[in-house]
Amino acid sequence: MVSTHQDDGIQLVRVDAEVIKAFAVQCLIKVGVPSEEAVIATDVLVESDLRGIESHGAPRFRQLYIGGIKDGKINAKPKIRVIQQSASTALMDGDGGLGMVVGHRAMKTAIEKATHSGAGFVAVTNSRHFGIAGYYACMALEYDMIGISMTNTTPLMVPTYGSKAMIGSNPISFAAPTKRGSPFVLDIATSLVSAGKFEVAIRKSEEIPQGWGMGRNDQPTTDPVEARNTRKFFPLGGQPNMASHKGYGLGVMVDILSGVLSGAGASVALQGTSGHFFGALRIDSFRSVDDFKDMMDGMCDDLRATPTLPGYDRVLVPGDKEFEAKEDRLRNGIPLYPDVVESLRMLSAELAIPLEL
Amino acid sequence: MVSTHQDDGIQLVRVDAEVIKAFAVQCLIKVGVPSEEAVIATDVLVESDLRGIESHGAPRFRQLYIGGIKDGKINAKPKIRVIQQSASTALMDGDGGLGMVVGHRAMKTAIEKATHSGAGFVAVTNSRHFGIAGYYACMALEYDMIGISMTNTTPLMVPTYGSKAMIGSNPISFAAPTKRGSPFVLDIATSLVSAGKFEVAIRKSEEIPQGWGMGRNDQPTTDPVEARNTRKFFPLGGQPNMASHKGYGLGVMVDILSGVLSGAGASVALQGTSGHFFGALRIDSFRSVDDFKDMMDGMCDDLRATPTLPGYDRVLVPGDKEFEAKEDRLRNGIPLYPDVVESLRMLSAELAIPLEL
Repeated sequence: MVSTHQDDGIQLVRVDAEVIKAFAVQCLIKVGVPSEEAVIATDVLVESDLRGIESHGAPRFRQLYIGGIKDGKINAKPKIRVIQQSASTALMDGDGGLGMVVGHRAMKTAIEKATHSGAGFVAVTNSRHFGIAGYYACMALEYDMIGISMTNTTPLMVPTYGSKAMIGSNPISFAAPTKRGSPFVLDIATSLVSAGKFEVAIRKSEEIPQGWGMGRNDQPTTDPVEARNTRKFFPLGGQPNMASHKGYGLGVMVDILSGVLSGAGASVALQGTSGHFFGALRIDSFRSVDDFKDMMDGMCDDLRATPTLPGYDRVLVPGDKEFEAKEDRLRNGIPLYPDVVESLRMLSAELAIPLEL
Repeated sequence: MVSTHQDDGIQLVRVDAEVIKAFAVQCLIKVGVPSEEAVIATDVLVESDLRGIESHGAPRFRQLYIGGIKDGKINAKPKIRVIQQSASTALMDGDGGLGMVVGHRAMKTAIEKATHSGAGFVAVTNSRHFGIAGYYACMALEYDMIGISMTNTTPLMVPTYGSKAMIGSNPISFAAPTKRGSPFVLDIATSLVSAGKFEVAIRKSEEIPQGWGMGRNDQPTTDPVEARNTRKFFPLGGQPNMASHKGYGLGVMVDILSGVLSGAGASVALQGTSGHFFGALRIDSFRSVDDFKDMMDGMCDDLRATPTLPGYDRVLVPGDKEFEAKEDRLRNGIPLYPDVVESLRMLSAELAIPLEL
């Protein structure tokens, strides 16, 4: 199914998620990924497109993932293994594989550990870019568990008072199940904004708010091109008097769990590699799942019913926006920007895999 | 040992930590707290004074803790018990006891669980204000574990787009050991600033930055008195275009772990009560403690060596400021504001416990 869609004057092509999935699976298989793993990796990628997280998924498919495998930076056939484990923890080695495949395996392990002992935590070394953190945290939901997921990335965030990028976007995801409506899913970079936000502003030829990132001469800039190229983004909080030390500290926390605990290294030590950290907490090892979900529903209802400030329609619960986007995109297709369509067409030609857009 | 100290024109009295400790222990015993628990509670409180976290400790001793016990809001002799447990998790009931006593017991339980199974996580219901979250996270350090601690509090933070306080200051603490220098200790409210920051600005007759809190008519204000009284603080991030949904989401995450998982209730449901959440991860269940600490030291060295922006001396690692304050205060005494000295003198008279300041 193909339709078009306007977004601030840019003509977008709507493509059925299944079309993108079938294409991506074939591409991955073509470059050597085993078919079962190609399906897993594709599911993670297309989920980000469905949730409307435009910094991930299809826009980065050709260059980051297929390109990474072709260049030998990503191992198409990794032997993922457990290096060390205890009743509720494990350290895993991703053998340089696709982060989505490694992450999926590691989160499964965390869930198995939690099934037996109440809690499961897995640190992962020697992995690669794993897509959206939120995918893995959400894997816990169907088991009536709370899910946690993090990763470190190469530096793009400056510490508070610092003028050099030392920490990655280092996202944190946390998911908890509900009975009604969408689950609670927090999925955030610890930098004020992720790199994708600058791309969006560039596409729309918009200025960015002062304080997202530095420009040349280490001054905050409103030019998204300059900020993207300088690649010195501010931590959540922004400036020191707005508590940027908190975003900075959370970013380093992610580095400790994903990089130091796993041995992958902190952000500054990464060379196209990544460390991850996954967790699962079995709710019924604390209290009844039913009672938990009822209280979640009540809390979410209360939050959504918060009186709004003038100019705003409603208060959202983390995850609401993404699951509304998913509902729309499952029905009407995933809107792709022209440059993304172009990159997929190039890939189709390069790998000789047909694609109807 | 008593000395004086100037802080922006306000005359502070420096008091030896041991003097405050001895006094606080006697006060707690006088109002019915068993002596061993009085010592524990005091240690938590004075640790916040030593670390320079002025929103906690001595300034709140008379009203919040002694007053709470006298008013029957805090149970001086709680029967703290485990309601439910598994190999690596527990749910505990604080029986309305002092949060410091309950928190200490629960964090001990998390550490014991982690000793046996690699990870230990404890949710706590029916507790009271527990002081600084950082104290409990740091309890894990001497066991070569990573420590995690959170609590929810009565509402003071507005959700993004909202005009009503729905979430507490809901702090997160995370501590990891190092070999050299101070440990990594993140200890942050998920609101942009905690209530204590407004008090500090009021004491110093300073304006607050626009964006910390709302004033009357739901407009951001620079008047700390108005912001404190309105009690509608912004989440970390501040405004929507500066990613305040992240601070808001982190605050709700704390509510889920501390309030919903424990059954204590989310922030809006609290009635002077509190839920907590504690975690411990045994480092050697992932990798060698020695290797972990060496990598921590390297990462902290790198961060501290980050080139600074003009006007700033150095980049700090979370915990540096607090442990430098502690070193100074252990040597030179804890500086107390006149209103704090006055409240301790009143307490001395009320309970007939001598105090030399």
